[in-house]
Amino acid sequence: MIMRRTQTAVLNRPAQQAQAVKLDAKQTLKVIPLGGIEEVGENMTIMEYGDDILVIDMGLGFPDETMPGIDYIIPNTKYLEENKKRIKGVIVTHGHLDHIGAIPYILPKIGDPPIYTMKLTGEFIKKRLDEFHLLGRSKIFELNKDDILTLGNFRIRFFRLNHNIPDSIGLAINSPAGLIVYATDWKFDHTPVDGKPTEFDKLAKFGGEGVALLMSDSTNAEKPGYSMSEKTLGETIDRLLMDAKGRVIFTTFSTLIGRVQQLFDAADKSNRKVVVTGRSLVNSVEICLATGYLKLPAKNMIIKMEQARKLPDNQVVILTTGSQGEEFSALARIARGEHKTIEIKKGDTVIVSASPIPGNERSISSTLSNLARQGAKVLYMKILDIHTSGHAYQEDLKLMIGLTRPKYFMPIHGEYHMLVAHANLARNVGVPEENIFTLDNGQMLELDPSGKVRVSEAKIPTGYVFVDGLGVGDVGEVVLRDRQVMSTDGMFVIIMSLERATGKLAQPPDIISRGFIYMKGSEDLLKEVKHEVRKIVETKSKMKQAEPSWAYIRSEVRDQIGEFLYQRTERRPMILPVVIEV
Amino acid sequence: MIMRRTQTAVLNRPAQQAQAVKLDAKQTLKVIPLGGIEEVGENMTIMEYGDDILVIDMGLGFPDETMPGIDYIIPNTKYLEENKKRIKGVIVTHGHLDHIGAIPYILPKIGDPPIYTMKLTGEFIKKRLDEFHLLGRSKIFELNKDDILTLGNFRIRFFRLNHNIPDSIGLAINSPAGLIVYATDWKFDHTPVDGKPTEFDKLAKFGGEGVALLMSDSTNAEKPGYSMSEKTLGETIDRLLMDAKGRVIFTTFSTLIGRVQQLFDAADKSNRKVVVTGRSLVNSVEICLATGYLKLPAKNMIIKMEQARKLPDNQVVILTTGSQGEEFSALARIARGEHKTIEIKKGDTVIVSASPIPGNERSISSTLSNLARQGAKVLYMKILDIHTSGHAYQEDLKLMIGLTRPKYFMPIHGEYHMLVAHANLARNVGVPEENIFTLDNGQMLELDPSGKVRVSEAKIPTGYVFVDGLGVGDVGEVVLRDRQVMSTDGMFVIIMSLERATGKLAQPPDIISRGFIYMKGSEDLLKEVKHEVRKIVETKSKMKQAEPSWAYIRSEVRDQIGEFLYQRTERRPMILPVVIEV
Repeated sequence: MIMRRTQTAVLNRPAQQAQAVKLDAKQTLKVIPLGGIEEVGENMTIMEYGDDILVIDMGLGFPDETMPGIDYIIPNTKYLEENKKRIKGVIVTHGHLDHIGAIPYILPKIGDPPIYTMKLTGEFIKKRLDEFHLLGRSKIFELNKDDILTLGNFRIRFFRLNHNIPDSIGLAINSPAGLIVYATDWKFDHTPVDGKPTEFDKLAKFGGEGVALLMSDSTNAEKPGYSMSEKTLGETIDRLLMDAKGRVIFTTFSTLIGRVQQLFDAADKSNRKVVVTGRSLVNSVEICLATGYLKLPAKNMIIKMEQARKLPDNQVVILTTGSQGEEFSALARIARGEHKTIEIKKGDTVIVSASPIPGNERSISSTLSNLARQGAKVLYMKILDIHTSGHAYQEDLKLMIGLTRPKYFMPIHGEYHMLVAHANLARNVGVPEENIFTLDNGQMLELDPSGKVRVSEAKIPTGYVFVDGLGVGDVGEVVLRDRQVMSTDGMFVIIMSLERATGKLAQPPDIISRGFIYMKGSEDLLKEVKHEVRKIVETKSKMKQAEPSWAYIRSEVRDQIGEFLYQRTERRPMILPVVIEV
Repeated sequence: MIMRRTQTAVLNRPAQQAQAVKLDAKQTLKVIPLGGIEEVGENMTIMEYGDDILVIDMGLGFPDETMPGIDYIIPNTKYLEENKKRIKGVIVTHGHLDHIGAIPYILPKIGDPPIYTMKLTGEFIKKRLDEFHLLGRSKIFELNKDDILTLGNFRIRFFRLNHNIPDSIGLAINSPAGLIVYATDWKFDHTPVDGKPTEFDKLAKFGGEGVALLMSDSTNAEKPGYSMSEKTLGETIDRLLMDAKGRVIFTTFSTLIGRVQQLFDAADKSNRKVVVTGRSLVNSVEICLATGYLKLPAKNMIIKMEQARKLPDNQVVILTTGSQGEEFSALARIARGEHKTIEIKKGDTVIVSASPIPGNERSISSTLSNLARQGAKVLYMKILDIHTSGHAYQEDLKLMIGLTRPKYFMPIHGEYHMLVAHANLARNVGVPEENIFTLDNGQMLELDPSGKVRVSEAKIPTGYVFVDGLGVGDVGEVVLRDRQVMSTDGMFVIIMSLERATGKLAQPPDIISRGFIYMKGSEDLLKEVKHEVRKIVETKSKMKQAEPSWAYIRSEVRDQIGEFLYQRTERRPMILPVVIEV
């Protein structure tokens, strides 16, 4: 095995050197990102002043190829667990999984503090807690965007931002050490589908009050220009649905409600009904219809597949999950011909209205091929502009800095190279380099009321906590390394029944191997291995010892057979020698 | 484990139904793609007429995430092995690994037929054969682009194409069933760096003669417009090297010689010397300098790192491998601070002049983050246009069809959805739908001298042959499935020493587990498992049987302990029960 793609080890070197500024730690605001600034995902931030702790978001991360078998990653919350009595509340900015997904795992461990968020986000959180049978443990307070929330030393105001899900908010947090503007996952959209643009007036007002620190979204900090309005996609969707002679199968992110709204509107204009499939989309649509975030342009627009079958093809849209080519998503099952009720037919047009999340490119391509093979026409981002990002581009990012005019700046939400790009932008629009802080997860930025700042030498515990099945945190580095070894070259168990008295083999060694080599074609190799094992045991058991050391024999067998197999195959399976004393 | 990304199973449904046209199979030209039309990679095509077989290219493919531990994929060549006496020769179109990489694996199995190719491609093939100690087994004939090669029933002419490596050629193959134009991996470049544009005149001439079948590159068939000339990048590279105040670290594909030439030219203009690092780049540069495909603009431009250290930073370029973030590439090692001689310093500019091969996005991003963390400025495709594809866009593809005016058309080189996009283009420019053939690997298109055509009902053996270490083809589906299971949930070996006479446990069961759960924290779980195993064995051994059936006990233990562990953990490790008879 030549290791090729799995290179995600992140160099562990503090980005920003701890500074020697002297501050009274009890009189400082501590800003501590727990996740989301060395990766895309698991967003979570702590603000702390005196005895009060404020938590912002609790997101999931998704594993990369160095973490086989892992379902999700959540931030390490040891620090919060140890200080749970001081937590005044959790504020959630919006309803995406990388901001709410870890709530069911973390909330019970930190004393079920109250959650403050906007209506729709609250609904998504409740749905998720319900799935974990945790509903009701924490109180969820519904915010209005003009509310002022006081939690201990913090006085928090909110401002509406645009993003790929409704009800996204930014925070303006007044603390004794100044005003912090926290803006994660945002874009400026002057023509959002829901008619509710960013509250520029509030941003300008905060700027006027004097912002000590701006924390802002770095996802697209490398992309020049402006992000495109969601509404400009509407025309494309209208046209595609109008022009398609057969059925349209449309997939997007399940929480991209603006897009879903535009699909419904387009369906109405082209006289189509909509079938919704895929669990997360069905949930989203249900929640948003019930709360008014999604409005059907006509009655009875949503139909079942059985009804759709009775309609002409050009009166049908199928709205489905699977925009990332996820193996068990509705679209992937449709593409493989494994969906219970939906089959592709010639004349179908499939529209993938989403960007690939890095790492999903191959599975998306494979889904597209399967769809094309069944006769569908496929349209996706490479072919035409059918998606717009929910994250600000460079010019928007500059405008945010221009509006808030922060003294200090911290890029958040992105991989490290994106943070650095954002830091460069900030410098270009006039924030002095020494006022810009690109932190690592767990590092603390401290601000004091006099305006002094430092990156603390202390760092709270961080790192990935892996969720695998029911286990949270029970899979660590050792288990993952073992999985990696076995996944590349398999494993090879050698069982030796040794006589207690003599140390000799009581019977020929047993060998079990999986994932190493096709055993039925390798009888000769196995015979040789058994012969080698016998030689090793005999040599060792001849050594006059008070009693033969099984550990020593195991270690010799592991090394020598490992080497033997490598010579023969250039593979290094995991060798597991077992001694049974008889 | 929730399976998420690994969804590459390709639906196995013939793309083009076999047709009922009657032909005399002995009098037909058979065109059989062995690889490259259901995936990007392992390109290889057979042409056959009467007793003569012609082979075009022998490429490698790269594994996806469903093939853990696999180094490379090569096409199944069983058909050729059985018919090796009829092989008249192998023609190689250009020197990329997905066209030459499988030569050392396949050539000896098919009787070492002669290879015909252009000079530079020949040099790359020799280098590769040399690495396998196979140099000299096959004769390699060096072609001139105006040569006419006669191999049995085939008369082959060549035409120069542009691509991301010099000496790329297309083939015009005259056979008794007509003229086939074979154009894989090409773009039109009116201003190529080497001053040698595509031979449009030849293409037009073939069109005039009458082309029975055009086979053409589908990689970018979904991209509107024209591909960008390599030369337009030159200005960007010049400017970047001119503007950079420190060292420039430049990475691109090792065979992208035009790009390397432009880098050397830019280095010269900005008064820089070049350090070359990374084995494949060092090899490429060496070969191309020796053969004149790369020309140093000044003497002594290439220096060692020790010499570079003595120069001011703005007089140094480091040209390195690693544009895909490959774990052990020079750039990834530099980024992690693990390179022997090269360390990043603040002020360095890293330029990634390559597009990500799908699947490599995350490792590239991780490398960029590591570089940024060390203080380098990183520039890559998302930030500015610093790469151009070697494959034709839609308008170029249409022009190719317009020049050659083929009767029949077969899109090649691409995943299935790309082939379909290319087929649609061909239809749009006037090739009748029934004259377009999107085949599967192993399917045969048959053409007879009267102009009739059919997709044969017969299909030659195809499929992936896996290369893993020294083994070629000894890892199959079973081994891969085992690796996948162990990589997601680990394995769990249960060793039971049973008394032959009674079927009872002679001693407590032994358990070895890896990759499943952190064992030191799971003593209770293990105790319970041992207890469960004891219960199962006792129940079974009480059953009055002539002799206890070990197979039955193993099967019960596998099922019941598997279920028990799933209930406790929601994981399904591979359970391996072993009975030792004592």
